[in-house]
Amino acid sequence: MSAPISRFPVPDIADLPADLRERVLAVQEKSGFVPNVFLALAHRPEEFRAFFAYHDALMEKRTGLTKAEREMIVVATSGVNDCLYCVVAHGAILRIRAKNPRLGEQVAVNYRKAEITPRQRAMLDFAVKVTTRSAEVDDQDYATLAAHGFAPDDIWDIAAIAAMFAMSNRLANALGIRPNDEFYAMGR
Amino acid sequence: MSAPISRFPVPDIADLPADLRERVLAVQEKSGFVPNVFLALAHRPEEFRAFFAYHDALMEKRTGLTKAEREMIVVATSGVNDCLYCVVAHGAILRIRAKNPRLGEQVAVNYRKAEITPRQRAMLDFAVKVTTRSAEVDDQDYATLAAHGFAPDDIWDIAAIAAMFAMSNRLANALGIRPNDEFYAMGR
Amino acid sequence: MSAPISRFPVPDIADLPADLRERVLAVQEKSGFVPNVFLALAHRPEEFRAFFAYHDALMEKRTGLTKAEREMIVVATSGVNDCLYCVVAHGAILRIRAKNPRLGEQVAVNYRKAEITPRQRAMLDFAVKVTTRSAEVDDQDYATLAAHGFAPDDIWDIAAIAAMFAMSNRLANALGIRPNDEFYAMGR
Amino acid sequence: MSAPISRFPVPDIADLPADLRERVLAVQEKSGFVPNVFLALAHRPEEFRAFFAYHDALMEKRTGLTKAEREMIVVATSGVNDCLYCVVAHGAILRIRAKNPRLGEQVAVNYRKAEITPRQRAMLDFAVKVTTRSAEVDDQDYATLAAHGFAPDDIWDIAAIAAMFAMSNRLANALGIRPNDEFYAMGR
Amino acid sequence: MSAPISRFPVPDIADLPADLRERVLAVQEKSGFVPNVFLALAHRPEEFRAFFAYHDALMEKRTGLTKAEREMIVVATSGVNDCLYCVVAHGAILRIRAKNPRLGEQVAVNYRKAEITPRQRAMLDFAVKVTTRSAEVDDQDYATLAAHGFAPDDIWDIAAIAAMFAMSNRLANALGIRPNDEFYAMGR
Amino acid sequence: MSAPISRFPVPDIADLPADLRERVLAVQEKSGFVPNVFLALAHRPEEFRAFFAYHDALMEKRTGLTKAEREMIVVATSGVNDCLYCVVAHGAILRIRAKNPRLGEQVAVNYRKAEITPRQRAMLDFAVKVTTRSAEVDDQDYATLAAHGFAPDDIWDIAAIAAMFAMSNRLANALGIRPNDEFYAMGR
Repeated sequence: MSAPISRFPVPDIADLPADLRERVLAVQEKSGFVPNVFLALAHRPEEFRAFFAYHDALMEKRTGLTKAEREMIVVATSGVNDCLYCVVAHGAILRIRAKNPRLGEQVAVNYRKAEITPRQRAMLDFAVKVTTRSAEVDDQDYATLAAHGFAPDDIWDIAAIAAMFAMSNRLANALGIRPNDEFYAMGR
Repeated sequence: MSAPISRFPVPDIADLPADLRERVLAVQEKSGFVPNVFLALAHRPEEFRAFFAYHDALMEKRTGLTKAEREMIVVATSGVNDCLYCVVAHGAILRIRAKNPRLGEQVAVNYRKAEITPRQRAMLDFAVKVTTRSAEVDDQDYATLAAHGFAPDDIWDIAAIAAMFAMSNRLANALGIRPNDEFYAMGR
Repeated sequence: MSAPISRFPVPDIADLPADLRERVLAVQEKSGFVPNVFLALAHRPEEFRAFFAYHDALMEKRTGLTKAEREMIVVATSGVNDCLYCVVAHGAILRIRAKNPRLGEQVAVNYRKAEITPRQRAMLDFAVKVTTRSAEVDDQDYATLAAHGFAPDDIWDIAAIAAMFAMSNRLANALGIRPNDEFYAMGR
Repeated sequence: MSAPISRFPVPDIADLPADLRERVLAVQEKSGFVPNVFLALAHRPEEFRAFFAYHDALMEKRTGLTKAEREMIVVATSGVNDCLYCVVAHGAILRIRAKNPRLGEQVAVNYRKAEITPRQRAMLDFAVKVTTRSAEVDDQDYATLAAHGFAPDDIWDIAAIAAMFAMSNRLANALGIRPNDEFYAMGR
Repeated sequence: MSAPISRFPVPDIADLPADLRERVLAVQEKSGFVPNVFLALAHRPEEFRAFFAYHDALMEKRTGLTKAEREMIVVATSGVNDCLYCVVAHGAILRIRAKNPRLGEQVAVNYRKAEITPRQRAMLDFAVKVTTRSAEVDDQDYATLAAHGFAPDDIWDIAAIAAMFAMSNRLANALGIRPNDEFYAMGR
Repeated sequence: MSAPISRFPVPDIADLPADLRERVLAVQEKSGFVPNVFLALAHRPEEFRAFFAYHDALMEKRTGLTKAEREMIVVATSGVNDCLYCVVAHGAILRIRAKNPRLGEQVAVNYRKAEITPRQRAMLDFAVKVTTRSAEVDDQDYATLAAHGFAPDDIWDIAAIAAMFAMSNRLANALGIRPNDEFYAMGR
């Protein structure tokens, strides 16, 4: 009755190249399950590697934006793009990282009403602008963020996370990646 | 730290006209809390009465669409309108009525990927058309729904629920009605 | 050759529940004809009662906004939603209440060029924002209206009228309610 | 209290070049007043001549589309562009040419619900496509119109009238041309 | 293999009315080829005359905006309208008149990043507003342009060029006018 | 007078990590210059590596879609996103790979009028759907592409290239990456 994990074949974990298998098993050990995006992208090992290398560079960084803030960007922009996989999976991570069981839905549905700071609101305004009309980004946007205390490299991070999930949302939507049932209940 | 219930004064339950108080206490007994929309609209008793009379006529009806289907329409159209209150409150009711803890987020974010039947998909396609471009509703829409087994009065129901929440979403957004924390955890 | 009054059956006035019949006959006596929205909604007496109770609470109120201003909000937002019934019927009422035979078309087509005051312009800017992007309503909107002299409850009225006609426009469009010929000539 | 005729200086009729004066006096004799678009564009005689030469070539043509149909195209597309001048002025002409006092508002607000034939509906569907997304016009559009009995040169006419009023609407809106009061009452 | 010049018959130059033939031969002598818009519109001599009379009045004017600036307006607005003919043909003319081989693509794709002055940026902001939402043009737009040193008649020119190419883009798109191969290489 | 390469610091090639330096020097040797995207992204070596690993996996693949077709997808979707860098750089590559000096502008401005095959048209229709409304991708899209002879992994490629440039366009726009002057003249 449940939809398939992806519109494309999903390889057995045992058949994966060693580096992918290691990554998949590590996330399984940490989370208790394998998020479907790992299985779906494993159909193309080279793209899997590039995707998660990019992801980790942006999402696991330890300076500047907090990890919860990085997830806010993912959830707000994935909401704009109507990406079920990313809203559900990253909504769960956001609830956990922010220790707030309401934040996932708030940021996905209307971040303007979420329980966030004015600084975070400015961050999400910019992220959504990058998502919906990046051709209009201008000096004023940079000045507004600077006035909220964001360093230039923080601004790069906001833009790059919004950009990376513009990709990720389209992949998940077009390849039909189904969110794991486990995500829905996490962090409540 | 939490946002207020509404941008407008919220009356004490004790001060409400008897019929409103009775309604509020009944919902409190049934749910364990008073949904904020009751408190917010109680600022205007006459409008409160009309709003809930309309709501009950459409949402509590026992023939035609199931109660879960009625909630699907609310959640899908409220998602389109970015209404946090309605997505959170009716997402909870949908999870409960459909006995599916995933359905709230699925229908709010992208009903095309939700765990619903093709008939329900057609129902939501029409509801979203009423929400976003009602001036284009035509004979073909009615014929498509009839082919899925919807009786004419079912079609009225779909249209009317979408219409009523076009109102409700705008009220909640413009008056700044905050969803109760309780809703987030219900039906998980 | 003329389109039917509604896509749904229209009851005989004689067969209506007493309270509906009384309301319909009263409007007929006052206007000289029965506006089709009364006949169309009479197919569902319970919804008829709720709809007009809400309508009257918002449109017949004697304090705050003038009746002409309330009609301006209806006509401007119905124009945005391309609702023929509401533009034609309420355009007529607006012409009469404002004693200006040009105002119906001006407000429906482009309220920014209508013969209205700057205060009314601000009122319609807000009403149209509630109509098209209510999720973005914020403190600044309230402050702008307050600066034009609107009391908080006036702002509620503007929002609620825009919201109610977001519903009404969708009902009229989706149910296919035809404007009575009489409206076109009224107040010219 | 009334807005000026245009944001730009309006010349005295007596000071106009002879050919413009003749045209203006002819329309005044026929209509009983001088439509403001003549006065506004007379600020630039060369453009006035080109504009009305184009207008007459498309709108006064005696073969193919009827004159009422040509006005339908103007009114439908001007409604889409929210051009008050063109909706009011050409709505009046449409009412007169079609001998139907309701048609102006119907076509301006939602031509899908207007008292027109299916052939005219197809004509307006195409005109509105030219107005809003001309880059997507394709062979199928031509085939649909041919199936409704439109000759190739009729299709050119539909496209060219929609195109000309894409210009005219923007001129009237940007230059701030006010519709004459007389138009509102004509053909009722 | 190449697409036809137009969806409509293209007359032989020898068969054209004398004034059209003269115009066509003049442009051929100057450019080395006949731009297809001349051949396509020659199917309707009266419209050809009006079109080019309007074009010349706006584009060949020797005061106020420079000829390169006039072409910038054409290219920016044609880019917004996705008009291949106008972007290619006027992109070429812009490269030549501005003596900048990059300016055609810059202005067509995103004029905000083009090698232009702040004054020209303001000019194009206004032109694009006239193109996309002319109903919202207001006093503030005129004031902004005046602050950049534009005289009132310069503002008329900007608006009128944007308006004329709103027409021209729709004609070229709907009639299927193919850009001549020669344009692509000019001014590189 | 020229804009900077990026809003962020651009490292000296000599200071780059060895693998980045090698990559940059290789492209310089092949093209005669260093495309600015290499210099801009070199500010973040880890992201540089992931970005180009992804890019190469999708764009340098030797089976399925031709390299020219891959560039068509880039140019069409970058046109939709108004990304000057990507339209200019990949327009040049497309002209070269397709050996058609007109194809860059055609595909960027309106791919529906480009000199491409019906199969390529279907490919770009899907790529643009992934770009603008990926949440609506459905079985019918896959069936349409299959009917044009695309294998499932070709469809993945189309979706993934559109997705990757949804990211790339937003990065280039938000970081302000300027296209090198050399691109404008290549392949003409």
